[in-house]
Amino acid sequence: MDTQILSGKVVSASVYKGLKSRIVKLKTNSITPCLAVVLIGDDAPSHVYVKNKTKKFASLNLNSETIKLTNETSENALLEIINNLNNDNKYHGILVQLPLPNHINNETIINAIDPKKDVDGFNPVNLGRLAAGRPSFIPCTPKGIMRVFEYYKIDLSNKHVVVVGRSNIVGRPISILTSLKRKYSNATTTICHSGTKNISYFTKQADIVILALGSPEYLKGNDIKEGAVVIDVGINRVKSQTKTGYKLLGDCEFSSINGKASCISPVPGGIGPMTIAMLVENTIEAAEKSANFAL
Amino acid sequence: MDTQILSGKVVSASVYKGLKSRIVKLKTNSITPCLAVVLIGDDAPSHVYVKNKTKKFASLNLNSETIKLTNETSENALLEIINNLNNDNKYHGILVQLPLPNHINNETIINAIDPKKDVDGFNPVNLGRLAAGRPSFIPCTPKGIMRVFEYYKIDLSNKHVVVVGRSNIVGRPISILTSLKRKYSNATTTICHSGTKNISYFTKQADIVILALGSPEYLKGNDIKEGAVVIDVGINRVKSQTKTGYKLLGDCEFSSINGKASCISPVPGGIGPMTIAMLVENTIEAAEKSANFAL
Repeated sequence: MDTQILSGKVVSASVYKGLKSRIVKLKTNSITPCLAVVLIGDDAPSHVYVKNKTKKFASLNLNSETIKLTNETSENALLEIINNLNNDNKYHGILVQLPLPNHINNETIINAIDPKKDVDGFNPVNLGRLAAGRPSFIPCTPKGIMRVFEYYKIDLSNKHVVVVGRSNIVGRPISILTSLKRKYSNATTTICHSGTKNISYFTKQADIVILALGSPEYLKGNDIKEGAVVIDVGINRVKSQTKTGYKLLGDCEFSSINGKASCISPVPGGIGPMTIAMLVENTIEAAEKSANFAL
Repeated sequence: MDTQILSGKVVSASVYKGLKSRIVKLKTNSITPCLAVVLIGDDAPSHVYVKNKTKKFASLNLNSETIKLTNETSENALLEIINNLNNDNKYHGILVQLPLPNHINNETIINAIDPKKDVDGFNPVNLGRLAAGRPSFIPCTPKGIMRVFEYYKIDLSNKHVVVVGRSNIVGRPISILTSLKRKYSNATTTICHSGTKNISYFTKQADIVILALGSPEYLKGNDIKEGAVVIDVGINRVKSQTKTGYKLLGDCEFSSINGKASCISPVPGGIGPMTIAMLVENTIEAAEKSANFAL
């Protein structure tokens, strides 16, 4: 079977195109959407992610500011910074790049972000609204996955979705999103995780498999049924003799999935670009809401 | 196979026994846990539910007050009442009995309840904390189901749980709770609903089936595998020639499940009594937190 590539580059380009008129409307009203990014310590991948995000904002003539803090920053100092960002109308979105140093409690920090500026959608208020099927800032990666389904007209209704991974950032929210009573959702969804002994028992039954475990090339062609849709959210850095010293591998083995699946989102170029696109969209939405614009 | 009856009467009795010392400690400190119940209109089942709840509070020497309002109450008037209850230290828990009249927006009302007094666990803040696996007020029925599993030592780890129903009150939260990385949870969970064409395909695979659809005797013996655990959350009033004019039926056909399942929670006497017990427990917890008691 010919396996179709679900290109996040193509879908995100269409997202950016659709956002143009919204950006113009905001600018006409003297509003330039602005994201504040808080980056703590010197975790190399975090610095790359943040750089990619801010580059994208700049390329769209949107504002972003990165507040770089040392690893020694105290929780209280960080809370004060977030509080200032919450109260400063200049910033429409706030993103605290994870992971945080061990002496800082993730939950305390995420709870401190004003839900109206929580463009990452990690604040419990937004996660709760999502679980209740109510409008909210939806975490960027799961939102991006849903947008890929819509773009490629992959309707999940009455399909069996198997999610592998239960993180609050991807697995949990996408398991909820796919099973909501909504257009392009409405799937019967199974959530597998580290406590599932026989994951392939479930993935073999799935019409759509969504992988978010962070285990390079975990899923093989034998683990899926012919014609399944495979969404690969894994971004695993594996040592290699390339210039950078590493290469990026997804959670599925492309070579054996290709030809058996009906569609696959590749790594890189699949869901990755969607995550940034949804961050941009959420920030624009936050700016619109702050100005009481109709969406 | 002998099917064991999972008795909510037995489990809730053990819950009440365990709460006694906590009530005594609160009373010693001049605190009597108090629940405010807001009851609007004259929906007969709602009146029965509220009466049962307040009777239970009285029998435990706990306080409860029912604020009865007419169907004509405006949303604004209701919001003002909730605001007053939020700000009155006398009340530790607030419960707005659903359903509300059509002219009142459920979401607006539930969002208005202070999360610290939201003993029903429906506020998005509490639902979001639940989804993120963080401490919160857990909705009473799903919390009661988990307590039944614990009491009867039914460990869900590495089991396949199939939930039928995706309401915010039962199906959605129990699908999350069963799959959290926690003792007695850690299951692989599938959520089925009105959009699932072939529900029995999934229930036949399940080690544990949790039914919350509100469809009398929906699940038959043929729909489960030998030895499955069946949790029946359905409470359906069906006309009958009894004194009351109706009888209560669950979502499963007891006669055909009995003898095939390893365990079943009956209707009535199964999960029903657990819901009230968890409401009492949540209210006591709210009172303890208000007094900064260690739990």
